Amino acid sequence: VINFELHPRLIQDTFHIANLTLCRVVLMNDSNYPWLILIPCRNGINELYELSNEDRLQLVKETDEVAKRMSIYFQASKMNVAALGNIVPQLHVHVIARKDNDISWPNPVWNNLETKPYIEKDANILIMDIKHLILDLVVDE
Amino acid sequence: VINFELHPRLIQDTFHIANLTLCRVVLMNDSNYPWLILIPCRNGINELYELSNEDRLQLVKETDEVAKRMSIYFQASKMNVAALGNIVPQLHVHVIARKDNDISWPNPVWNNLETKPYIEKDANILIMDIKHLILDLVVDE
Repeated sequence: VINFELHPRLIQDTFHIANLTLCRVVLMNDSNYPWLILIPCRNGINELYELSNEDRLQLVKETDEVAKRMSIYFQASKMNVAALGNIVPQLHVHVIARKDNDISWPNPVWNNLETKPYIEKDANILIMDIKHLILDLVVDE
Repeated sequence: VINFELHPRLIQDTFHIANLTLCRVVLMNDSNYPWLILIPCRNGINELYELSNEDRLQLVKETDEVAKRMSIYFQASKMNVAALGNIVPQLHVHVIARKDNDISWPNPVWNNLETKPYIEKDANILIMDIKHLILDLVVDE
């Protein structure tokens, strides 16, 4: 999409991973959890139901596929999938691999703790791992 | 679905509203927010991606339609839509109408506050209002 730009807060809080058919995939800079965010590259969309039918189905495909692979790869106890957006209205979907021994379990990840930024090396390794995990879904980097 | 039963915690924390084609719709007993939960009436499903393709699309239809109508009816600033399930693994989708003057704004509703149960009369009125709002989607009560 021409001129699509991430909300500044998403740029600030995440690392870029790749672009899928519809969504940009980024890694939340919080090493407490494997936490991706998928942002449909469409301008002016704040709510799931504002997407076209075609985009809405593509979003389901991408979030489900990413969640399924994360669940296996990270041996998640539960995937948390959420479109909230009270602070960042630009539509974005959190896909978080939760483990029953993670620091916030069983509570949701929000409002709990300060985020714990990655060490740069660890972030780079994880980004490569996730790129590999979703490689067949990636249309460009 | 034969023998489908809500998780005991969902029964305890909510009021029944109606059954749609796929989902049971219940009202969370927390008067801080208009907060519905949609539960696909399928046994043994914990994750969104475990639904059949047909059910997954029906879930999207029902959650989007309910969210859109709630947004208008409750004049929401933002809809929050989330499948978490760390405590109640049975797949259920939160659909919450947030207002920029509600008690937790802009934070997510979880981990913030004690729930504030409805007065019975208020719950009954709201349940009737919501039934009316989604009447054409209801297949049985």
